[in-house]
Amino acid sequence: MTKMLKGIAASDGIAAAKAYMLVQPDLSFSEKSIDDPAAEIKRLDDAVEASKGELEAIKAKAAQNLGAEEAEVFEAHLTILADPEMLGQIKDKIQNEKVNAEAALKSVTDMFISMFESMTDNAYMQERAGDIRDVTKRVMSHLLGVTLPNPALIDEEVVIVAHDLTPSDTAQLDRNFVKGFITDIGGRTSHSAIMSRTLEIPAVVGSGSATTEIAEGQMVIIDGIEGDAIVDPSADQLAQYEQKAADFKAQKEEWKQLKDAKSVSKDGKEVLLGANIGTPKDVVGAVENGAEAVGLFRSEFLYMDASELPSEDEQFEAYKEAVEGMNGKQVVVRTMDIGGDKDLPYLPLPEEENPFLGYRAIRISLDRQDIFRTQLRALLRASHYGRLAIMFPMIATVKEFKDAKAIFEEEKANLIAAGVPVSDDIEVGMMMEIPAAAMIADKLAKYADFFSIGTNDLIQYSMAADRGNERVSYLYQPYNPSILRLIKNIIDASHKEGKWTGMCGEMAGDQVAVPLLLGLGLDEFSMSATSILKTRSLLKKLDANKMKELATKAVEDCETTEEVVALVEEYTK
Amino acid sequence: MTKMLKGIAASDGIAAAKAYMLVQPDLSFSEKSIDDPAAEIKRLDDAVEASKGELEAIKAKAAQNLGAEEAEVFEAHLTILADPEMLGQIKDKIQNEKVNAEAALKSVTDMFISMFESMTDNAYMQERAGDIRDVTKRVMSHLLGVTLPNPALIDEEVVIVAHDLTPSDTAQLDRNFVKGFITDIGGRTSHSAIMSRTLEIPAVVGSGSATTEIAEGQMVIIDGIEGDAIVDPSADQLAQYEQKAADFKAQKEEWKQLKDAKSVSKDGKEVLLGANIGTPKDVVGAVENGAEAVGLFRSEFLYMDASELPSEDEQFEAYKEAVEGMNGKQVVVRTMDIGGDKDLPYLPLPEEENPFLGYRAIRISLDRQDIFRTQLRALLRASHYGRLAIMFPMIATVKEFKDAKAIFEEEKANLIAAGVPVSDDIEVGMMMEIPAAAMIADKLAKYADFFSIGTNDLIQYSMAADRGNERVSYLYQPYNPSILRLIKNIIDASHKEGKWTGMCGEMAGDQVAVPLLLGLGLDEFSMSATSILKTRSLLKKLDANKMKELATKAVEDCETTEEVVALVEEYTK
Repeated sequence: MTKMLKGIAASDGIAAAKAYMLVQPDLSFSEKSIDDPAAEIKRLDDAVEASKGELEAIKAKAAQNLGAEEAEVFEAHLTILADPEMLGQIKDKIQNEKVNAEAALKSVTDMFISMFESMTDNAYMQERAGDIRDVTKRVMSHLLGVTLPNPALIDEEVVIVAHDLTPSDTAQLDRNFVKGFITDIGGRTSHSAIMSRTLEIPAVVGSGSATTEIAEGQMVIIDGIEGDAIVDPSADQLAQYEQKAADFKAQKEEWKQLKDAKSVSKDGKEVLLGANIGTPKDVVGAVENGAEAVGLFRSEFLYMDASELPSEDEQFEAYKEAVEGMNGKQVVVRTMDIGGDKDLPYLPLPEEENPFLGYRAIRISLDRQDIFRTQLRALLRASHYGRLAIMFPMIATVKEFKDAKAIFEEEKANLIAAGVPVSDDIEVGMMMEIPAAAMIADKLAKYADFFSIGTNDLIQYSMAADRGNERVSYLYQPYNPSILRLIKNIIDASHKEGKWTGMCGEMAGDQVAVPLLLGLGLDEFSMSATSILKTRSLLKKLDANKMKELATKAVEDCETTEEVVALVEEYTK
Repeated sequence: MTKMLKGIAASDGIAAAKAYMLVQPDLSFSEKSIDDPAAEIKRLDDAVEASKGELEAIKAKAAQNLGAEEAEVFEAHLTILADPEMLGQIKDKIQNEKVNAEAALKSVTDMFISMFESMTDNAYMQERAGDIRDVTKRVMSHLLGVTLPNPALIDEEVVIVAHDLTPSDTAQLDRNFVKGFITDIGGRTSHSAIMSRTLEIPAVVGSGSATTEIAEGQMVIIDGIEGDAIVDPSADQLAQYEQKAADFKAQKEEWKQLKDAKSVSKDGKEVLLGANIGTPKDVVGAVENGAEAVGLFRSEFLYMDASELPSEDEQFEAYKEAVEGMNGKQVVVRTMDIGGDKDLPYLPLPEEENPFLGYRAIRISLDRQDIFRTQLRALLRASHYGRLAIMFPMIATVKEFKDAKAIFEEEKANLIAAGVPVSDDIEVGMMMEIPAAAMIADKLAKYADFFSIGTNDLIQYSMAADRGNERVSYLYQPYNPSILRLIKNIIDASHKEGKWTGMCGEMAGDQVAVPLLLGLGLDEFSMSATSILKTRSLLKKLDANKMKELATKAVEDCETTEEVVALVEEYTK
């Protein structure tokens, strides 16, 4: 029977395909005494053999569809299953303690996992712990006679149905077959949502119940424009959505015409549309999608994808590649923003009650100047090869900015004294993501060359609501007058000092927010590369003077988010 | 050798006495195989007997000095040691597994503890888990031959030296003997600091190293006015501090003259000085210290000191006692503010990554209207017996306030319809502790009858820094211009609508903040009762017009906390 699910529109587009349930089965079991250890060991051997066969198939498929690198993880899993030490211990346990294979498997692998995990200064061993966990799951599934989902084996067009998607889930997906996503949880800024936009796959997140409402193999239409999903659609509905998909495709073609156009409103106000990128490789997609700048280069990937602190040279090469790739267009690199929900295995941070309110970003950089100075030197050296700008994350006070800037100046002077070529017009700015900083934007604008508003954090601190916490996510309100006032305060303060303000949070590419932000005078909008052309097209239809009137009303008269949204509709219809 | 320690002045006054080290000894041990189980069981029995003797002594002392209720906990400990079941299991383990007594004790008690703790819906069993943990520590200390501190046995004047003080530590302290505190960690708003002010015991917190720099029995001077401690002072220093203590005593006598005086500045500007209270019993101290109102009655105690949700009648009695005790002066009750770092054993809250940014206070009340409506009915009924006001904690948006107020109006109408007497001039206000709310104070002032600024939370959210996190506590800056601007925005907005603003955070009684707050136009200062007279005395010396000039300069011209502090010094010297 046809069912309609409502969720959050996470990535534009329409898709229709059979459901693939990416759902973890229940692997719980009871510990039991057994009488016949030989039979139990046979059960274990069978499960191991079945797992090996499965892993060989997945490995071959992964190598073919995803590349050698993605296939390697399965090779690592096979190696674990071939290790006589661990298997031997499991069998000994069955033999000596007369427990069932499930209990013996769990007990022995748990011990290996915690042993490897305790080697906190060794990223390789930490990864092995993850591998053992994955392999144990697979063997356990065969012991229990349940089926693990094997996304790497997908060989027909599907819509993925999942509670949530983790980075490791998505690494296994073949873009040629995955036509759409729908998840139970998550919002527009969750990992699943951001990834679906990067991959340009239509997606609906936060549907609440997709994994319980949809069954394997059912036909599902994903409407990533409206945030709807239709399960088991009628022929009429299918035809209707095919038309919608064709219209969307035509619209995308139209957007592509804007690739080399300026970003300009109906009445001629020009702004800059930039891309947020995570690695130098992303520059290709930014350029293809008509980015006029990189408004945010998250330098964390250098730290998070590594097993030790990246050297100055490694960092230099990455920054150089990015600025060269942008060919004279500005690249704003944000200095290391770890802590909060981003940990480094080789740099253990203290356990914190409230990590979002803790030791993170510039707070770590000012404390661990060894790490900070290495990064600044790499950035300074790369500045010679293009138009590089630097910004500091999580600045709360004037003192923090001045301290960070002074360290930058010191390193710059040292390099120049050593005869290293360094650009002499590097803009040094800051993220505006802490309410206290927004309140004294006029003071900070005297020192910072530019501001970049990080809306995800700014909103969560202003509202005192963790954006990842489902119970309070209703307070993540980008259009609330309180947030708009903070943004206005930041933009006005920068303009008064002849500086500029960008925005690199999700809000910058949000179609309801763009009219407001244009009206508030935002200079640069930085977003997922795939949102740029759509936004450029929207800007062409907006009258900047009228949007100024809209923004003034929203900031002065509106009391609630709902009133602001209604006002935007009125002004843009 | 004389040593000087610097810390944070937490509670006024001077004390000199011998150091009592309230430091937990190292109770770690190695698990060992043993050959002679009988000898090991004997060791255990001896340790249990020694523990019993100690507990009897402590119990007698506690009953005599602190009262029967405080002594009960030790009776509970004795009962555990008399229980043959647990002791029997420990002995069996020694006998059968040939492990040392320490390992057997730990293993068996751990099992009992986790069993009791898993009964999350049973507060009694949860408490038993805590008792077993305490008793195990004591027996372990005897097995290992180390000494546990027994603060209840203190029978001479001492200065307590601790890493930090927990509520259970302080419950055992006899005020007649404890002359002062010094701790390694904590700030002016930590539990230790607040308690030292409530008990009027001179205290220095956050000294960093008191427990390593001071040895048991050394003479220590605590200067709670400056935040200093002198270890092993010279005769000259002792004499000097005796003089300082005498001066302080004289000053306190002088302050006492102000008990029934109005709170008024040198040039005649009148404000209100209120007390923050935690239970109806605290009203006595508030009145004694000349409170003109209760600016904050934390209703949490009703929920936290109970084993199930308090009934409407229980709550009614507590609120009635408070308003009657204040005899016509206003009592502002804050509705339930749990969550964050305050849990209820019988109302399990979800595990959260960042509890301070999570499901708490009004967010729970609006979600769990059953609990909220019960509290509102109790408050409404109590309003008939005095001058009661209500405020909602953690309001972030206009919608939340309107929703909460609508529920209040509904319950009020229901009670009136049922013929229950209810006051018809209950003020309904809100805490101002979320930056987003401060940004739209003008909108909120149309609906709220008053604002009460909660500086602890307002500062931690504005700065994005958990006040309890040592690594970022440098960002807890009450005088930062960003915070002062938020406060000014709140006060101005309330006055524009003919409403009033109070402050119930620690900042309201802070002697550097008071000149600024007077200048910003704050109407009510609510603080620890023991700070009221000192603040009234300070106000008498301040010129409100000059402080207005100070506040304007601080808000408009200053860039940093340091500049504000210097400006206050200049204006008040």
